[in-house]
Amino acid sequence: MKVIKTIKDMQALVQQLRRDGQSIGFVPTMGFLHEGHCSLMQRARKENDVVVLSIFVNPTQFGPNEDFDTYPRDFERDEQIALKEGVDYLFYPSVEEMYKENPSVSISVINRVDVLCGAKRAGHFDGVATILTKLFHIVSPHRAYFGKKDAQQVAVVHGLIKDFNFPVELVAIDTVREEDGLAKSSRNVYLTEAERTQAPVLYKSLRQAVEKINQGETNPDRLKEIISANIQAYTSAEIDYVEVYSYPELQPVTTVTGQVILAVAVQFSKARLIDNLIIEV
Amino acid sequence: MKVIKTIKDMQALVQQLRRDGQSIGFVPTMGFLHEGHCSLMQRARKENDVVVLSIFVNPTQFGPNEDFDTYPRDFERDEQIALKEGVDYLFYPSVEEMYKENPSVSISVINRVDVLCGAKRAGHFDGVATILTKLFHIVSPHRAYFGKKDAQQVAVVHGLIKDFNFPVELVAIDTVREEDGLAKSSRNVYLTEAERTQAPVLYKSLRQAVEKINQGETNPDRLKEIISANIQAYTSAEIDYVEVYSYPELQPVTTVTGQVILAVAVQFSKARLIDNLIIEV
Repeated sequence: MKVIKTIKDMQALVQQLRRDGQSIGFVPTMGFLHEGHCSLMQRARKENDVVVLSIFVNPTQFGPNEDFDTYPRDFERDEQIALKEGVDYLFYPSVEEMYKENPSVSISVINRVDVLCGAKRAGHFDGVATILTKLFHIVSPHRAYFGKKDAQQVAVVHGLIKDFNFPVELVAIDTVREEDGLAKSSRNVYLTEAERTQAPVLYKSLRQAVEKINQGETNPDRLKEIISANIQAYTSAEIDYVEVYSYPELQPVTTVTGQVILAVAVQFSKARLIDNLIIEV
Repeated sequence: MKVIKTIKDMQALVQQLRRDGQSIGFVPTMGFLHEGHCSLMQRARKENDVVVLSIFVNPTQFGPNEDFDTYPRDFERDEQIALKEGVDYLFYPSVEEMYKENPSVSISVINRVDVLCGAKRAGHFDGVATILTKLFHIVSPHRAYFGKKDAQQVAVVHGLIKDFNFPVELVAIDTVREEDGLAKSSRNVYLTEAERTQAPVLYKSLRQAVEKINQGETNPDRLKEIISANIQAYTSAEIDYVEVYSYPELQPVTTVTGQVILAVAVQFSKARLIDNLIIEV
């Protein structure tokens, strides 16, 4: 595995790989890799000749009161994980390499942002869209891999690729879960022992709602009630949101049809957890 | 020469060309081709294995009071010119093909726009940046060709490519001129006979200013005075602007150094003419 730190080197490399007829799979991350990232790398490894992983904690997607400075970083550990997962090239640029002074263009995400977690993170997805535009131009991937855990991010990337005609295939990977169904997350360590036993209720309640849909329920409000009632009955968490939207458009629906997302966010004493299921009705 | 009307066909073609190791030169236009465009096609023909010309009158770069509907179009004539210049592929999509409903992302040009002609055309360069982003993703060119006549457009494209790391080389081509120095333009036909004899003064006064720079003049205000005085003395045109900026940043300069642009726009009775010289001091 080769670590590449400059845009120029990365671009020269991928242009040569493309001339050689190699397919390129790309996993963009902010590092501090966990099993979710590993499932992306594994899928990319299966589907492409070459796998590129990027590690870049992107300042432009953090708000002024968010944790850019304290965001966890451990490059040496990440490097070992990437190596083990069969990554060929690790793109690891500095902030100075990625952002020059006085940019003259900017990208705004004007849809799919004012809902779910995006409602409270103004500008977050503008930063995501900007860094991905840059990374796609630097890595020139055939396929780019994202986890469905961040379903809103996947929806935004879907819009970015479609609206700007990027010649990149978006591959969205199912959320990796513990045996009891809890979505894996680095935040799970903040759960108390009691909360940890309650936390699988998020996934279970989403599954119950899907079962209701399979039985013919099409009213989004009743589905939200099922999910909310379950979480309130069986956990001590405070509900942030329970939503049913069309997907990837993230528009409210009056009747559940087509592709929809059931999404939930809750606050335990110290851990904020999110989960979702995307289904085709 | 093959005419291609869908994004899908164009993308499939260029991906195959790239796998075959072919270099791609791209000339994006709004059609109604003239000698300026021909010089771009000729240069692209010299420098690349494959030349792609696009013809697309882009609605998003026209203001509400501008002439999108009446903008001149003559596809059959353009097709003959492209054929004669050795173009391999003519990308000619419809507005519906290029712009789907409800886009979720947008590009804004936040620098280099509030000066020169851009000062009066709010949103124009946002439209230019958006359509070029899309076309670059559709055509995947190694090199893209633009005329220096639209120096501000070249500056904006320079920023777009640099800020978003497009793997595209910008090639800016010198303005094509009549024998007496007048920049070729489809608008020159609107000049009266008397105005036509005066019009070369624009270029001559820019040349005189450059001569002064070569003699050691570094004060931008004095250079502007020379240009303005010439135009006022020898033409009946009304001056819209005479400017000296750093290039491609388009920032005011207090002393003429580095790369600078001398730019002028005037209004004759019916024709608005622009001209510029970009020099390295």
